[in-house]
Amino acid sequence: VTVEVPDRAACAALDAADPLAHCRDRFVLPRGLVYLDGNSLGALPRAVRAAVDSVIDHEWGHDLIASWDDNGWWDAPVVVGDVLAPLLGAGPGQVVVCDSTSVNVAKQVEVALTMRPGRDTIVTEIGNFPTDRYLVDAIAARRGARVVAVPRAEVVEAMGERPAVVVLTHVDYRTGEVHDLRAVTEAAHAAGALTLWDLSHSAGAVPLALDDDGADLAVGCGYKYLNGGPGAPAYVYVAARHQVDLPSPLPGWVGHADPFAMEDAYRPADGVRRLLVGTPPILALAAFGAALSVFHGVAMADLRAKSLALTDLFIDLVEARELPVTLATPRDHHRRGSQVSLRHPAAPEVMDRLIAAGVVGDIRPPDILRFGFAPLYVRYVDVWDAADALATILTTGRP
Amino acid sequence: VTVEVPDRAACAALDAADPLAHCRDRFVLPRGLVYLDGNSLGALPRAVRAAVDSVIDHEWGHDLIASWDDNGWWDAPVVVGDVLAPLLGAGPGQVVVCDSTSVNVAKQVEVALTMRPGRDTIVTEIGNFPTDRYLVDAIAARRGARVVAVPRAEVVEAMGERPAVVVLTHVDYRTGEVHDLRAVTEAAHAAGALTLWDLSHSAGAVPLALDDDGADLAVGCGYKYLNGGPGAPAYVYVAARHQVDLPSPLPGWVGHADPFAMEDAYRPADGVRRLLVGTPPILALAAFGAALSVFHGVAMADLRAKSLALTDLFIDLVEARELPVTLATPRDHHRRGSQVSLRHPAAPEVMDRLIAAGVVGDIRPPDILRFGFAPLYVRYVDVWDAADALATILTTGRP
Repeated sequence: VTVEVPDRAACAALDAADPLAHCRDRFVLPRGLVYLDGNSLGALPRAVRAAVDSVIDHEWGHDLIASWDDNGWWDAPVVVGDVLAPLLGAGPGQVVVCDSTSVNVAKQVEVALTMRPGRDTIVTEIGNFPTDRYLVDAIAARRGARVVAVPRAEVVEAMGERPAVVVLTHVDYRTGEVHDLRAVTEAAHAAGALTLWDLSHSAGAVPLALDDDGADLAVGCGYKYLNGGPGAPAYVYVAARHQVDLPSPLPGWVGHADPFAMEDAYRPADGVRRLLVGTPPILALAAFGAALSVFHGVAMADLRAKSLALTDLFIDLVEARELPVTLATPRDHHRRGSQVSLRHPAAPEVMDRLIAAGVVGDIRPPDILRFGFAPLYVRYVDVWDAADALATILTTGRP
Repeated sequence: VTVEVPDRAACAALDAADPLAHCRDRFVLPRGLVYLDGNSLGALPRAVRAAVDSVIDHEWGHDLIASWDDNGWWDAPVVVGDVLAPLLGAGPGQVVVCDSTSVNVAKQVEVALTMRPGRDTIVTEIGNFPTDRYLVDAIAARRGARVVAVPRAEVVEAMGERPAVVVLTHVDYRTGEVHDLRAVTEAAHAAGALTLWDLSHSAGAVPLALDDDGADLAVGCGYKYLNGGPGAPAYVYVAARHQVDLPSPLPGWVGHADPFAMEDAYRPADGVRRLLVGTPPILALAAFGAALSVFHGVAMADLRAKSLALTDLFIDLVEARELPVTLATPRDHHRRGSQVSLRHPAAPEVMDRLIAAGVVGDIRPPDILRFGFAPLYVRYVDVWDAADALATILTTGRP
């Protein structure tokens, strides 16, 4: 059975009819480049430079120290968090932007273990993103807790281990496979456990409904589909119901109830704010806040529909050409994030040639060619061009 | 005895003869403002905006993901650390720029306790900067360690407690008093302890000689006298001799020996690099790196001489006017940082009036008026104007 696939003109027609097509102008993109690595570093939103320049010139350069109050610097982690929250399906007051994903994983694992004092097991997935795994292992070792790492298919079964917390990445960074956040969360709750979701490869491209799905804790990265810039600050989510007795695993002065009282003893700020540690990174928060404006007026349903259409198209085009690659990403829409991963034994060389041909994806060991599809700026013709370049490389040996 | 003090014209003459006068042009400063709060937020170095814009436009906007290698993003924490190192009196390979001061204090306290396994006591000072204290207390509680907090004068005596580590801030944030870093370090070593110095209120204005003084561990802030920008990344120092067996208290993927191998288990990178945790904050590192260029060609001896001259002048002018304030900063040069603190029972109101009069310092509870003197951009006439404005406020009740 041959898959029927559109030609390039048909892809151009899809772009012309795309309700999100206008969003591409919200980004700066190099002419002629097919950028399919927004799941590693999101493209530059056009609004970022003016926002950062304004902070540098006017707020830092002119208003100086008064900016902490007058220009909202002090509240920026909370304000940007509340702008981000709808993309996570979170109501206000539950998200703050701070630190790196890694530091936030460390904080949230400590939070979870502290909130489940009778338990000492952490369930996670074999092949979870390395930094999540390293920090889970380190904190478990420090606290005398036990890590049970199981294959993806056995996560729900592992609830029988009576875990304190289940630590998972919502979309797998290699395969793009999505966990059923609600189902896993319900299973965890039924077992008396909390969930800690890493949303790094989801937020901004895959619909999230943390509040509705009953999520407990989450973290995520600012610089992938959220386009916050290289090394952008990360974020934490704590469901409102957990905030009253929320521990402060890294009690820095910014998470203090009254930082400028300069008290000798720590008293936690209200709510999720107590997960703030050091002084907020204002330039990076300005970039991140401006970057989030690209989602203005975008319906998540449209974003998801385009994401699935783009990834469907890429899979179809690759399969129609009968290329010597193995699809690592689920065909099932319910299990697919916003990326397509293809296995090829010479993945590094193939990707080098693709990049030389102006198609940027990346690789993940040992054999994965990874392509991320950011629905706000990737076009259907980009997908066609990427598949065509890949076909040329794999069938001729040279691009 | 009346102190003989220069008039404003004499101060202008001092500026004309100042070997560092040309450095003021390296900063953007609002016209007419006397800015004496560079110990809280350093002024904007002129080089910052172009550096940040270039990263946004060319590196992020054009080169995108390739910038991690091609534009040195991956090594930026180490490269900027090595640019900073001479200001700390540190040779290369011992300083990395990362995270916040608070997170770095947490890391370094864990490092120290791990490196002194037979000991469980942390000596610190009553009135140490709050975030240092909060994190020392939290980590001690987590590890079952003991915190011995003593008055400044009893720090050396407290070495009898057989501490694992002595955690001190080099220049006190309220009074500007300096610890004798070498003497305290020697006393700590004689007692078998490590030292962890917080250099936040020193670096960039007070000479440091970490290597020569035998320091073990240090942290510090990027946004005070180092002018790295609001919430700039902080830094850690680990003496070369401690790096072979250096623990990784927060083992994130960026501190892994081979991050892109995406291994399941953590293996530490060589040396101080293993104290890196999450993805480096590139925009902020670009700002910080550019900011450090203001120190180019500046001899630390000149910087210190001007710092002492400025603070001497301010003290003299205040005392000559017989203002109703109490000097909280040591007159002894060996014990003074680069700030002058004056106690006044109505400090908040006095500072509000000073700021309204165009002289920006800040307050610290309960009664301290705090004035920081950044020798690269503060002029002698600024000192005169500040003292004059203060005198007007304190003698007339209104500016």
